[in-house]
Amino acid sequence: MEIALFIFDRMTSLDAVGPLEIIGRAPNADVKIVGKTAGTVRAGKSSSGLGLIADYAIADVPSPDILLIPGGADMSHVTSDREVLDWVRQVHETTTWTTSVCTGALVLGAAGVLDGKRATTHWSARTQLAEYGAIPVAERVVIDGKAMTGAGVSAGIDMAFTLFGMVAGDEHAQFVQLLTEYDPRPPYHSGSLETAPAAVLERARPFMPS
Amino acid sequence: MEIALFIFDRMTSLDAVGPLEIIGRAPNADVKIVGKTAGTVRAGKSSSGLGLIADYAIADVPSPDILLIPGGADMSHVTSDREVLDWVRQVHETTTWTTSVCTGALVLGAAGVLDGKRATTHWSARTQLAEYGAIPVAERVVIDGKAMTGAGVSAGIDMAFTLFGMVAGDEHAQFVQLLTEYDPRPPYHSGSLETAPAAVLERARPFMPS
Repeated sequence: MEIALFIFDRMTSLDAVGPLEIIGRAPNADVKIVGKTAGTVRAGKSSSGLGLIADYAIADVPSPDILLIPGGADMSHVTSDREVLDWVRQVHETTTWTTSVCTGALVLGAAGVLDGKRATTHWSARTQLAEYGAIPVAERVVIDGKAMTGAGVSAGIDMAFTLFGMVAGDEHAQFVQLLTEYDPRPPYHSGSLETAPAAVLERARPFMPS
Repeated sequence: MEIALFIFDRMTSLDAVGPLEIIGRAPNADVKIVGKTAGTVRAGKSSSGLGLIADYAIADVPSPDILLIPGGADMSHVTSDREVLDWVRQVHETTTWTTSVCTGALVLGAAGVLDGKRATTHWSARTQLAEYGAIPVAERVVIDGKAMTGAGVSAGIDMAFTLFGMVAGDEHAQFVQLLTEYDPRPPYHSGSLETAPAAVLERARPFMPS
């Protein structure tokens, strides 16, 4: 089961590594870390600034079973890259699952593979996702056909467990949940627009879609 | 606020990137990705196999405010590395917070900085942690003095929000929780030894401390 994780400059590192850590433990998982070209990419400075290595170029990975696209605070350099979008569109033709986390959904949208499909993304990007013809849904994980999308950043972990269950069964997914101690206990309750306190929503206002 | 994330071969990538993504968003965060030497490290094949870049060598980062040590399935090459342990011990003298995720606690233990302290680690490593003189506690995040430890893999995210609140205040932590949509909804309830189904515990038996 070939899993292609696409990475790129200014991405959000947890968007990628959260789901990778989970789905990479599936039986027969053959993870390929893919950049537009092979080499180093650098996550966004607003998040970790972490350097990550693309072991493959997109041209080397034409037919993965699972495609995973993470997001970032600024996606315009990816959503305008015709070569990357062509690859996403071609790869999608033969994937079992085409997936995204956070604003990675905008790349799927720009490639045209979410047209008329229900999908989720970071709360700040729902309007933009709709502009690509997708139907934005304010849920944590959304499945429409073979497109599976996760909401912002940390939602990629929940998406990956959902995906894991589908490709390798519930019991193995539960085993990996135990191995990764995924028993979350957030010390605050501010993880969604519905639960964040008023003062936090006020801080977040500049990021909200108009 | 200088934050040193120590990375090494065969580490678990989410142990590092989960907390990094959160605490790296703190005001004035100056993240330094540190290896024994600068250059590439490769996460464990049992998890992601991801290549990560250490921008600094340990010798370049003698006095971070926060030290963060992730874990991995096999830690013996780190817990036996005198040069790394000396660095951890020296750095700990002047940190504000010395932190670990998962079996990263074994490195703190081997360096002697958890002697007589309450600490948590991956459930599989509690016995080994006790051998270093620490008092293992089956909690998700444990604070004893300036040592803050998180349980297995995904617990690093909860630890990072706890740490974030302490260094930058609750409201900013809540804002970052909203930005990262940390509103977890695991599709299974198998994230701890207490909640995992019997068949899953049976699979996990080889990993349990004797």
